[in-house]
Amino acid sequence: MRLRDVGEFGLIARIARRAGRDGGGGAVRIGIGDDAAVLRLRRGEDVAVTTDAAVEGVHFRWRTTPARLVGRRALRAAVSDLSAMGARPLGVTLSLTAPPSLPLASIEGCIGGLLDEARDAGCPLVGGNVARGKVASLTLAVLGAVRRGRALRRDAARPGDRVFVTGTFGGAALDVARAERAGAPARHLPPVRLRAGQALARTARVGACIDVSDGLLADLGHVLEASGAGAELDLARIPLPPGFARACTKLRLDPLALALAGGEDYELLFTVRPGGPREATLSRRLGAPVREIGRIVRGRGVRGLEIGGFTHF
Amino acid sequence: MRLRDVGEFGLIARIARRAGRDGGGGAVRIGIGDDAAVLRLRRGEDVAVTTDAAVEGVHFRWRTTPARLVGRRALRAAVSDLSAMGARPLGVTLSLTAPPSLPLASIEGCIGGLLDEARDAGCPLVGGNVARGKVASLTLAVLGAVRRGRALRRDAARPGDRVFVTGTFGGAALDVARAERAGAPARHLPPVRLRAGQALARTARVGACIDVSDGLLADLGHVLEASGAGAELDLARIPLPPGFARACTKLRLDPLALALAGGEDYELLFTVRPGGPREATLSRRLGAPVREIGRIVRGRGVRGLEIGGFTHF
Repeated sequence: MRLRDVGEFGLIARIARRAGRDGGGGAVRIGIGDDAAVLRLRRGEDVAVTTDAAVEGVHFRWRTTPARLVGRRALRAAVSDLSAMGARPLGVTLSLTAPPSLPLASIEGCIGGLLDEARDAGCPLVGGNVARGKVASLTLAVLGAVRRGRALRRDAARPGDRVFVTGTFGGAALDVARAERAGAPARHLPPVRLRAGQALARTARVGACIDVSDGLLADLGHVLEASGAGAELDLARIPLPPGFARACTKLRLDPLALALAGGEDYELLFTVRPGGPREATLSRRLGAPVREIGRIVRGRGVRGLEIGGFTHF
Repeated sequence: MRLRDVGEFGLIARIARRAGRDGGGGAVRIGIGDDAAVLRLRRGEDVAVTTDAAVEGVHFRWRTTPARLVGRRALRAAVSDLSAMGARPLGVTLSLTAPPSLPLASIEGCIGGLLDEARDAGCPLVGGNVARGKVASLTLAVLGAVRRGRALRRDAARPGDRVFVTGTFGGAALDVARAERAGAPARHLPPVRLRAGQALARTARVGACIDVSDGLLADLGHVLEASGAGAELDLARIPLPPGFARACTKLRLDPLALALAGGEDYELLFTVRPGGPREATLSRRLGAPVREIGRIVRGRGVRGLEIGGFTHF
């Protein structure tokens, strides 16, 4: 069965049925089915909103990515931006395009994966839109709630801050490289750092925060540009997945390059003022591994400390 | 110059510069440039959110639609859903896909039109996303604020309610038909009924409300389905644009069919309980022409009253 066999309204009805069963978090006053969804904040909260797209042929291929994974990744990638703001999720809208010839199993698998992740993240599907398109694409808008004046920002790093990251880096890029050579699907999935982000937003002496989607160096660069500062990284401290170096060597890949520039790790990078909490405290509070990898300095750009000297990126 | 000459980040920087100049309504606490935008509600308000997409080849063609109009229409169509909820606009996100070969003038014209409308509607661009795509598409998520418990709903029509509409019907469909035959651009533009919607939400004895995007009969059908009721329409009272019947006759089109099924009128259709305000009062309060066109009845479906009897749709 293909998308054209159920049509636009048929697909919407199918999605709404499944979302209605899965969704409906406490914030939802009006869900799917009206001109707009209506969501309620708690007292003293602002609303955070961001949008992200996954486009067939650019971000995924049906041939090499299991349909459920397409939806799961799309939701996790979008929600990652809420983590980086320290927001708690309220809901998500989905704007879908797909060619009429697309197998219904693909679209339903994809939506199923998305709804599973949405339920786990407490971020119910509250509305959407379906349109015909030459290729499939999922555009998500996620809404979250942040305590007033406590949203984590990119532009709040200051010289003297220490730089921390959650989790490990390079795993997604290695998985993609491995899958390409094997002609197999890439199975990596962004981590969910929602609790870590919310805990950070409640922590004193936290500076800037960003989620690492473009790559550690690139996203650190975004923080530095917004904050008007530079950074020094201790390259030996960049956290790598277990067995990463050996796996990279086998594929003749440079582990450090992959970890610094690979992208799609979706971990949090944040800074802490002098006198703020250290690794162990942060790790416990955030419920995630946390590693100190460098510090913010005056000036511009990033210097990498290696044994024997500096590397300028 | 083409999109590939400035790249994804170049385009984002261009849009951000223009949006920064235009946008920044009172609700915006953090605008473009962070992981998410942060918007503030007033006391006693809920947030309304909806998403809408305009896809090249489905909703517009660069060849026949001036680029600015593509952006203007996309924004007005998205904001129309806020009108239908009685919401005041807070902000909008834009997720853009485009082929690298697209002339920069097209994309910039389109964005320019969108930003002009966003400013006029008090709905600033607060964030977005740019991705490569085989065709161009604009996916908007609009956020609005509604007073708690006062959002206008589709499912609130009751037998005995009178049915009203703003503006006129069939004009957009006639414009499209005319343009197709002349090989010229269709110039119609959705009306902005934001103030009318907000006034309705403050009015006592208002029942259901919807914006008419799919066509008068189709969207009335959505209200009836959600409300579990039927309707009788006085077909002689459907408001038509000036000179409409003559223009239709010239093109051998049925004026009533166009007005009832044409779509893209983006007027409001709403119901009022017995004892509620009548046409003149509503018209003054909403700041828009208002016409009573029928009533809600028990049962299902729509009957059209014509001279000599009923038409069942």
